[in-house]
Amino acid sequence: MGRRGFDAERDLVRKLWKCGFAVIRGPASGSRIKRAVCPDVVAIKNRNVFVFEVKKRSKYDSIYLDKEQVLKLVEFARRAGGEAFIAVKISNNPWKFIPVNKLVDVGSSYKVPRDEIEAGLDIDDLVRMCDTFIPLTSYKKRSSY
Amino acid sequence: MGRRGFDAERDLVRKLWKCGFAVIRGPASGSRIKRAVCPDVVAIKNRNVFVFEVKKRSKYDSIYLDKEQVLKLVEFARRAGGEAFIAVKISNNPWKFIPVNKLVDVGSSYKVPRDEIEAGLDIDDLVRMCDTFIPLTSYKKRSSY
Repeated sequence: MGRRGFDAERDLVRKLWKCGFAVIRGPASGSRIKRAVCPDVVAIKNRNVFVFEVKKRSKYDSIYLDKEQVLKLVEFARRAGGEAFIAVKISNNPWKFIPVNKLVDVGSSYKVPRDEIEAGLDIDDLVRMCDTFIPLTSYKKRSSY
Repeated sequence: MGRRGFDAERDLVRKLWKCGFAVIRGPASGSRIKRAVCPDVVAIKNRNVFVFEVKKRSKYDSIYLDKEQVLKLVEFARRAGGEAFIAVKISNNPWKFIPVNKLVDVGSSYKVPRDEIEAGLDIDDLVRMCDTFIPLTSYKKRSSY
């Protein structure tokens, strides 16, 4: 992970902490444990667990993800009883959170389609999911989407 | 954190993962974020959250902890809706988990008394707490304690 990814993770940690989450970043990329099991960021509030793979990009476009990495994220969320998201920061726009069930299998990788990034959840949506827990499967999108 | 502490954390992560927990280690000590907010290890199973400050020692004796560090651990657990423990590894003995409410305020630091280390929970106790969630406040110690 380069400087860009590191700064993005730090920004996400700060924002989630300000929203009342307990937040932990995984060890730096490249370490053995990181590669083995850990998401980039885990945020917890009132026993609601959100796990994130973090992606920073300069412009809106589809993002392609390593399959094995995504499956590890999903396994971590399954054990925790939580929800897995791809956290996407496009330039200086607000964070967008794309549930992993929106990813598209394109053979060699998983694709996060551009329109799913634009339609992703905001940080306030995550906070609301914790205040009155609504399973993601029944979560209603706001009309402004 | 020295080599000893690093190896101990890694051992704890492995054992908790084998027991079915989702487990994440914080960034290495010394980094800014680590000092700011993160426990050494966080383990989650079925939305039960356990946060740990990890201590490795060569022999049984009381352990003294930095107060600010303990208070940060407690704040993290409060936000998460979880339980905070001091995870203690004495030489090659099994891990012991001491709930933070067993710590004694000795002015400049918090003390983990030797007898509380010996009476600490085992890893199997943590697993049981997840299978049928029992709040720590009503958790019955086994008669062998």
